[in-house]
Amino acid sequence: MTIPQPYLMFLGDVPDQLAAKTAAGIADWRPEWCVGQLRLAGCRADLGIADLSIPEAKAKGARTLVIGVVNAGGVLPDHWIGVVVAALEAGLDVASGLHTRLGSVSAIAEAAARHGRQLFDVRHSDRHFATGKGVKRSGRRLLTVGTDCSVGKKYTALALEKEMRARGIKADFCATGQTGVFISGRGVAIDAVVADFIAGAVEWLSPAADPDHWDLIEGQGSLFHPSFSGVTMGLLHGAQPDAFVVCHEPTRTRMRGVERALPSIAEVIDLTVRCGQVTNPAIRPLGIAVNTKAYDEAEARRYLDSASRTHGLPATDPIRFGVGVLVDALQAEFP
Amino acid sequence: MTIPQPYLMFLGDVPDQLAAKTAAGIADWRPEWCVGQLRLAGCRADLGIADLSIPEAKAKGARTLVIGVVNAGGVLPDHWIGVVVAALEAGLDVASGLHTRLGSVSAIAEAAARHGRQLFDVRHSDRHFATGKGVKRSGRRLLTVGTDCSVGKKYTALALEKEMRARGIKADFCATGQTGVFISGRGVAIDAVVADFIAGAVEWLSPAADPDHWDLIEGQGSLFHPSFSGVTMGLLHGAQPDAFVVCHEPTRTRMRGVERALPSIAEVIDLTVRCGQVTNPAIRPLGIAVNTKAYDEAEARRYLDSASRTHGLPATDPIRFGVGVLVDALQAEFP
Repeated sequence: MTIPQPYLMFLGDVPDQLAAKTAAGIADWRPEWCVGQLRLAGCRADLGIADLSIPEAKAKGARTLVIGVVNAGGVLPDHWIGVVVAALEAGLDVASGLHTRLGSVSAIAEAAARHGRQLFDVRHSDRHFATGKGVKRSGRRLLTVGTDCSVGKKYTALALEKEMRARGIKADFCATGQTGVFISGRGVAIDAVVADFIAGAVEWLSPAADPDHWDLIEGQGSLFHPSFSGVTMGLLHGAQPDAFVVCHEPTRTRMRGVERALPSIAEVIDLTVRCGQVTNPAIRPLGIAVNTKAYDEAEARRYLDSASRTHGLPATDPIRFGVGVLVDALQAEFP
Repeated sequence: MTIPQPYLMFLGDVPDQLAAKTAAGIADWRPEWCVGQLRLAGCRADLGIADLSIPEAKAKGARTLVIGVVNAGGVLPDHWIGVVVAALEAGLDVASGLHTRLGSVSAIAEAAARHGRQLFDVRHSDRHFATGKGVKRSGRRLLTVGTDCSVGKKYTALALEKEMRARGIKADFCATGQTGVFISGRGVAIDAVVADFIAGAVEWLSPAADPDHWDLIEGQGSLFHPSFSGVTMGLLHGAQPDAFVVCHEPTRTRMRGVERALPSIAEVIDLTVRCGQVTNPAIRPLGIAVNTKAYDEAEARRYLDSASRTHGLPATDPIRFGVGVLVDALQAEFP
């Protein structure tokens, strides 16, 4: 799937920054692909890039409107449909990472057909997967796991890929979500795969590779999240990771979308090892990646030092301090 | 979905008895719905009912051909298509529990259209589910879990429903698989739901009920099965069971479809409690249900006595000895 660049990032009127995580991910990791953002009144997300209308974006060369938001269930709100149709009429293609297929909305399907435009549903794949088999595959695998959704699992995996490649280590980010698929141009949104095939899709995503090659597999959900733990479990088993990094956001008081507290890092380490041993008896924690954005630098360093001592693992904020300590540990433990 | 009865059970040429579990389930629990079986040369399954051709079944009043088999991936073998078409031409409807939709096979779709016949894909549902939320629902829930696929989770839940109703306890079997949906006429095949919605589908399946009402929720897969653990985990969290029964088949040396040994009953109890506590902190094991078909009666009793002593839980073979001891324990622990 080749989505014509550059993009106009559509944020709708989402209620918070995290809801625009797809757009934020693309803007952070592929800034050269984004000409600006289109936001509706009341929008509480901001990528910090130019606010543009459709005609303004078109004038700047935009070729695709990317619906860069997430919500529980991945639905397309009715009051956004007009914007999507306007983009098509203006000559843009439209790409979306929602569960709702763009073409399932008749006004959108008709506008696309009428204007000869393409609709990309990045959440969906025509590929048929086999069921997972749990057979050991050559090569190394690292999985990012989390105490919640949206705690930095994708960012950590992308940061690891960048740092490892800079050190000459063979490494590939394996996208398991729509945003990762947008960013890397490959992968599969496993949360949109039929349940029986989750592990199988991940085995396809991360096939046998050279013994010194690392697949950096993007985690999804959390084993402790009541909505998405099934996705997390199937991913863990399909990925058969040798190592995992626990991602966390320490000021979050409630898991995304549900009324419950986050598990502790220790609980996540313990359950990930217990479950992960089914397909890789050697699975172990490598380190901790914390989103310390809510802290100033001194607080962040204190938190990370404490986490590192508590768990006996390197701890960092991938964005603020880099993933050097994690890759140091990886090189030491997997020579 | 009302599938016209009675049925001709199609077993194809499956390689073993377990592969015909859907047909066997319907024949065991709804014998009055089955006029006979249609088997191809080399078939290694046998329901012990009359072998009939399509014309013979039609003469006995059969109204639907039921494809009563399972295989990893739920595909329809090419060499069975002719039989399905012949059934449609003879005036039968066709029902299937496979992942492959009947209508996706053009010869079948055309024959159904040409002869004005119905195609039922019991694995698939048009219903849209929300994501699970983990909110506590009124009423009691029991979930059957297993050391593997096809160890009696459905049979145990159905047997419990029968016994509990006989004792005047409000109880409903909740089907989570295609066979259970066939048998009960309700429910949803959760392994065919898109991954993000597994827990949500189960929450829909088992809504808030009277405080003294029991939902007996059919388990799927195993937390230790590398293919289907994602389904098992999402089901466990969506079901928020107060109690669970561990199902096992002690002579099985290899998990279904994969090259690995079964976990122990103790491992399943432990991991089910650890994971299940996320949505029901009070979750606990109620008992053990063992398929002792491979043992004679004395061996069976010895095995069950040993399992009961080892785990401190009532243990029985639901088919051979009934589920009385399990319901005794349920009534004692949940007055």
